[in-house]
Amino acid sequence: MGEFELIRRYFSPLNGQGRTDLLVLGPGDDCAIERVTPDHHLVFSVDTLVEGVHFPADYDAGRLGWRALAVAASDLAAMGARPVCFTLALTLPAADPSWLQGFSGGLARAARQFGLALAGGDTTRGPLTLSLQVHGEVPAGTALLRSGAGVGDLVCVSGVLGEAGAALDYLGVRRPSADQQVLLQRYHEPVPRLELGMALRAAATAAIDVSDGLVADLGHILEASGVGAELDPSAVPLSGAVCRLCGPERAMELALHGGDDYELCITISPESWDALPASVRTQLSIIGKVVDGQGVAGVDTSAGSSGYDHFGSET
Amino acid sequence: MGEFELIRRYFSPLNGQGRTDLLVLGPGDDCAIERVTPDHHLVFSVDTLVEGVHFPADYDAGRLGWRALAVAASDLAAMGARPVCFTLALTLPAADPSWLQGFSGGLARAARQFGLALAGGDTTRGPLTLSLQVHGEVPAGTALLRSGAGVGDLVCVSGVLGEAGAALDYLGVRRPSADQQVLLQRYHEPVPRLELGMALRAAATAAIDVSDGLVADLGHILEASGVGAELDPSAVPLSGAVCRLCGPERAMELALHGGDDYELCITISPESWDALPASVRTQLSIIGKVVDGQGVAGVDTSAGSSGYDHFGSET
Repeated sequence: MGEFELIRRYFSPLNGQGRTDLLVLGPGDDCAIERVTPDHHLVFSVDTLVEGVHFPADYDAGRLGWRALAVAASDLAAMGARPVCFTLALTLPAADPSWLQGFSGGLARAARQFGLALAGGDTTRGPLTLSLQVHGEVPAGTALLRSGAGVGDLVCVSGVLGEAGAALDYLGVRRPSADQQVLLQRYHEPVPRLELGMALRAAATAAIDVSDGLVADLGHILEASGVGAELDPSAVPLSGAVCRLCGPERAMELALHGGDDYELCITISPESWDALPASVRTQLSIIGKVVDGQGVAGVDTSAGSSGYDHFGSET
Repeated sequence: MGEFELIRRYFSPLNGQGRTDLLVLGPGDDCAIERVTPDHHLVFSVDTLVEGVHFPADYDAGRLGWRALAVAASDLAAMGARPVCFTLALTLPAADPSWLQGFSGGLARAARQFGLALAGGDTTRGPLTLSLQVHGEVPAGTALLRSGAGVGDLVCVSGVLGEAGAALDYLGVRRPSADQQVLLQRYHEPVPRLELGMALRAAATAAIDVSDGLVADLGHILEASGVGAELDPSAVPLSGAVCRLCGPERAMELALHGGDDYELCITISPESWDALPASVRTQLSIIGKVVDGQGVAGVDTSAGSSGYDHFGSET
């Protein structure tokens, strides 16, 4: 099966998903063509996943398809961008039909859910490697950057933290309990906080997605903004399932340092917080405040990350 | 050396190259941000190069940096797009300082020459693999597609063909002759026809870059346009160096089927041809015409491509 046949057979079903109204020309020519809404900017990020480094050698193809697009789309959420389209650079050792069927199925489910149209790509032979570039757009000047945090801002985080990190201990379990299933679902099928990111556009002063762990990722905001943060450990949102399975101490450690949760960590002024719709506030926990200085204080920052080679994320 | 340090040390020198006026936010945040000129469309393409598949294991790092960006930028030339910026997804087995120095140097030279700003990327550990995505822009509705060729159009090609394909026989030569040097230069440092592509925007009916060989790539235009072509073999532009080294018969075979030349093959109406500035016409040879039917006639189409695993190119 040649490259053209492979693309036609497995990836054509993705055509028509997502923001095709902005995709002037999709796959098949030398380039794709995208229209950007007037007075908007293009926002884009690329993420690479390598077999044996970012996912195990026998990882389920459908989960990989979902996960690869979810991880990439989480960077759009962190900018407050509306998803538009993506490209897939797929390097494969062989054209295995059942693997391709599973992978493109997971990818198509994610593309539909996140509103991302397949714009193009490149399929080559070699060690299994995926590079996905996601495109979104924001009204000019409204993107959420890492560099805008100011002294006095609140530090907030969405959802609960630590579930994906805790899941690493249960990846091989054959009959997971209900609590273990919560963790595994979170690990295998992360959901980027796209709607929340867009809702925070006019309000947050800085944002990042939690891929490497709360302390590490909040640290990127603080460094880019030239400030520090004082966290209230009792306010860090823990997972009930993780507390029951691992105990509250380990749950706190995972919430601070576990990766792969893909929640949003933001800073926001108290006035803007008060002005947020209640439906947005309920998705966020206030966990501390921005202070003069540098680094994270108030919690144990000595522990490293989860120790697993997580799915990387860097622009 | 961690990922952040690696990027700072080797790729920061690329900051400031190219169309930084359109790059609202470069590397370092969750995403990059690009402004698209009003009434223009974004044009983009991704190309992957895998060690041992698209380039030999000991390939010079500086040449690889140039070549990777040139091959990707050639797709912008084929659309008539003006280059803007690019992302680099770089997977490396190890952070070898001398390799990184050479690679980023070749990449920086190409970025400067082609006017492409480094917008972002992802650096991961694994088998040596590069995925470059190039961004350009065109006035809305003016991009050169593969699908516009019409019966009666002239078929034209830029420059001379076959030199890069002929170079494959001399890659290991220690003291290349002057003719061999011409071929090797062409192979190692291809120059995408960016200015020519832009000059053909309002004139050509279809365009493609010659990466897989003239007959194969013209075939893509014909298939997308639903037409055929009759070529005049005596009009196919041969390389003097290739004729002297390989004889005229082999030179013709390489001109028709050799890859990696990165010239442009276009179709254009006779009226538009006559209206082209002389400075543009002199860069092109008329090699045939578009006819009813399908496929390429008038030349030997039986030979395959060069047989070497060339640097791939597909959107």
